Amino acid sequence: MVVPIDPTSAGFLYAESRQMPMHVGGLQLFEKPEGAPRDYARKLYETMSQVDEIAPLFNKRPTRGITTAGQWVWTEDDNFDLEYHFRHSALPKPGRIRELLDLCSRLHSTRLARERPLWEAHLIEGLRDGRVALYTKLHHSLVDGIAAMRLMQSVMTTDPDKRNMPPMWAAQPSSKTAKARDEAESSLSAVPLDALRSALGITADAAGLPGALIKTLRSGLKNETSALSLYAPRTMFNTTITGSRRFAAEGWPIERLRAIGKASGTTLNDVVLAMCSGAIRSYLVDHDSLPDSTLVSMVPVGLHPKESKTSASAGGNAVGAVMVKLGTDLDDPADRLASIHKSMKTGKEALGSMSQLQIMAMSALGMAPSLVIPMLRLQGVMRPPFNLIISNVPGPKSPQYLNGARMTGSYPLSIPINGMALNITCNSYAGDMDFGLTGCRRSVPHLQRLLTHLDDELGALEKATGVS
Amino acid sequence: MVVPIDPTSAGFLYAESRQMPMHVGGLQLFEKPEGAPRDYARKLYETMSQVDEIAPLFNKRPTRGITTAGQWVWTEDDNFDLEYHFRHSALPKPGRIRELLDLCSRLHSTRLARERPLWEAHLIEGLRDGRVALYTKLHHSLVDGIAAMRLMQSVMTTDPDKRNMPPMWAAQPSSKTAKARDEAESSLSAVPLDALRSALGITADAAGLPGALIKTLRSGLKNETSALSLYAPRTMFNTTITGSRRFAAEGWPIERLRAIGKASGTTLNDVVLAMCSGAIRSYLVDHDSLPDSTLVSMVPVGLHPKESKTSASAGGNAVGAVMVKLGTDLDDPADRLASIHKSMKTGKEALGSMSQLQIMAMSALGMAPSLVIPMLRLQGVMRPPFNLIISNVPGPKSPQYLNGARMTGSYPLSIPINGMALNITCNSYAGDMDFGLTGCRRSVPHLQRLLTHLDDELGALEKATGVS
Repeated sequence: MVVPIDPTSAGFLYAESRQMPMHVGGLQLFEKPEGAPRDYARKLYETMSQVDEIAPLFNKRPTRGITTAGQWVWTEDDNFDLEYHFRHSALPKPGRIRELLDLCSRLHSTRLARERPLWEAHLIEGLRDGRVALYTKLHHSLVDGIAAMRLMQSVMTTDPDKRNMPPMWAAQPSSKTAKARDEAESSLSAVPLDALRSALGITADAAGLPGALIKTLRSGLKNETSALSLYAPRTMFNTTITGSRRFAAEGWPIERLRAIGKASGTTLNDVVLAMCSGAIRSYLVDHDSLPDSTLVSMVPVGLHPKESKTSASAGGNAVGAVMVKLGTDLDDPADRLASIHKSMKTGKEALGSMSQLQIMAMSALGMAPSLVIPMLRLQGVMRPPFNLIISNVPGPKSPQYLNGARMTGSYPLSIPINGMALNITCNSYAGDMDFGLTGCRRSVPHLQRLLTHLDDELGALEKATGVS
Repeated sequence: MVVPIDPTSAGFLYAESRQMPMHVGGLQLFEKPEGAPRDYARKLYETMSQVDEIAPLFNKRPTRGITTAGQWVWTEDDNFDLEYHFRHSALPKPGRIRELLDLCSRLHSTRLARERPLWEAHLIEGLRDGRVALYTKLHHSLVDGIAAMRLMQSVMTTDPDKRNMPPMWAAQPSSKTAKARDEAESSLSAVPLDALRSALGITADAAGLPGALIKTLRSGLKNETSALSLYAPRTMFNTTITGSRRFAAEGWPIERLRAIGKASGTTLNDVVLAMCSGAIRSYLVDHDSLPDSTLVSMVPVGLHPKESKTSASAGGNAVGAVMVKLGTDLDDPADRLASIHKSMKTGKEALGSMSQLQIMAMSALGMAPSLVIPMLRLQGVMRPPFNLIISNVPGPKSPQYLNGARMTGSYPLSIPINGMALNITCNSYAGDMDFGLTGCRRSVPHLQRLLTHLDDELGALEKATGVS
């Protein structure tokens, strides 16, 4: 069966290069159930490999040729080979988180082969604390990052006694997985404005810009209080990237973040941004390259379908984007948090007063930054419109189990792009805020040091707001 | 410093695609020294990472652009990052050879990044018998497969007590390594005929064929007893390939092979080919696709510099190639061996009577099959000129040690190409004949079964020649 690929999805295929692989990923950590056998990981791998039928999302590959008039179409993979996609890996001793992050960095650096369905999953053993990890990568032409995280989490259950749970690639899923998969499949083609959608598809070929998007971008250039600020200083992150990645991840109790928010009258998301701001500031100081003016982060907002203004049937991931000044020019952690709170509030208000069309244009920004950046170049915008993207994706609140193994953390891996070498995505899960930092290995050296800085900043914020 | 890339090497860069990565590899297995600490592999990794200066061969990367007039040149890597190139990996339990081959198959499937020097090495722990493995990959534009094996082996010593040995990428090598590296560097540019060399470079761009090579190929078409037979049946191996690989490896005592040769009046190489012939026959019978006429293997000969007719200064790897009928159409193992012996003898005689120019053309075939196959297509040769390449690379006769660890086996990984999905390369080492089989994962399914067939065939040959 041949299915046309919608222009947005095709855009990610066109935009992809060896330097800029276009896949999102997730790293999930699991505690073995009590009394698990020594070969638990092997057995879990075998269980997850026993699949009668593969779900269409995981069994389609992109093709194009003379018969498709040069257009990308989805075709079913007649040679589907599960062992190729789902792999069993291990960490060298001492099996610390560091070795796990090294392996995930490598796995996230290689491109998905287009001659096969665009996904891979790796069950990883060898952590010295006995936990088992699952790294999953999915091409952005299949799903966006948020849909990917939802899909990965949908196969789990709150029931610790449930066993023989089908993996996300199985055609016989739980109703939750089926729903997440449907949403994921529709999310990319869900942008309701045909004009914008085609424009994005075309833009990947460097052909043109939709008028509405240009207008929004221009108003951003004129008005700093707009949701879309195009004034951001150039930093070491805003450079051409290489094809290799570094990934770092860690989680902190949400309670600690909430206490700071409560004490300072700011939101949980403000505190997440303040942690990132302080950490990035310290990192840039270490590299003697902190700009005088503040860094600007694009922050996708309105992730819940209810909050978005798209119709319910259009899928779950319509987002707006606010340009938040991170206050990296300010010395004091409390000042930075206050500045972020204000910038976020102004940005959200501006977003609220935007037209449906403008919000959709913002939505496109949120969904497809890799397509938008080259567009901005074409428009002669020399300074980066923002320095990085920081997303915060809400995840499940209760502990989740996979065949009896409790998930202890869930960390997103994202897509660094040319001009945007660092990405931070957070995922809340069972009382923790899990941070996933993905960067170009060359442009963001010693990325893992940001984890220490994040931890330090959390402490500094607690102190500054009188929490501790 | 910018150094032009010679046309042959550049040819491998042009010919490379995601489906056809152009790197050769080696898998070496080591027994830990007595009394090795538990973290032996980690320590070895750290020792091999302590390098003051990187040898030029391992520190150059290909670039091209406006300043180089679109030509490929070598430039020094200003951002050299050893941790990127040299990696520490591990096998999941139970840590059998099977898990090792799975990992090597994956590692051999990914392309080398051109934004960095074109090599990787992976120190692998987790084999249940306690051995440590080293998988190394080098781009064919740096060295050919034979030079690569020599280079990998050159860093070792026969002295089990020697420690702190510099790895092959260190600028301060043993004299043996320096020599092997020099030879490797000159081997690709050593083809003395400028015309042929440029022709190969051009051919990768599908532009033309050297007259001498066409002549040799044509005479092959006319004369079946020539060294170059262009009559080979189409088999499942002679098809378009995908980008993923399967690798299988095993060694057998050379004594067993020699005994067969002695009893039958054939050479060691004849017996190697007979093992391959019988194994491939069984494999094709399993897949119900054994052709009526015999498969033909290209077998590079004259690997020693002394035996070649090139000048000594031209480097070590000038080779001729003989087209050997494998006798897969014959039922009896002894008949197949006799047929191979005869075909090899005739081929070598024909090679002996060839002109210098013709031998160089053959040499080019041996060095660059990937370039030659498209050339043959251009000439309208519809049937494959040969079905696969079987090489036999002589290695060290005495046990070799790396920082006190005895090497127990050394297996080459080669390059499957479009139309030639399976490659077999053997390496003799310390009384064993080590076989490395590299194939396209899709076109050569269950490649590892060839190992069982090789073992069976060795037994059958012993029986047929009255050795056992």
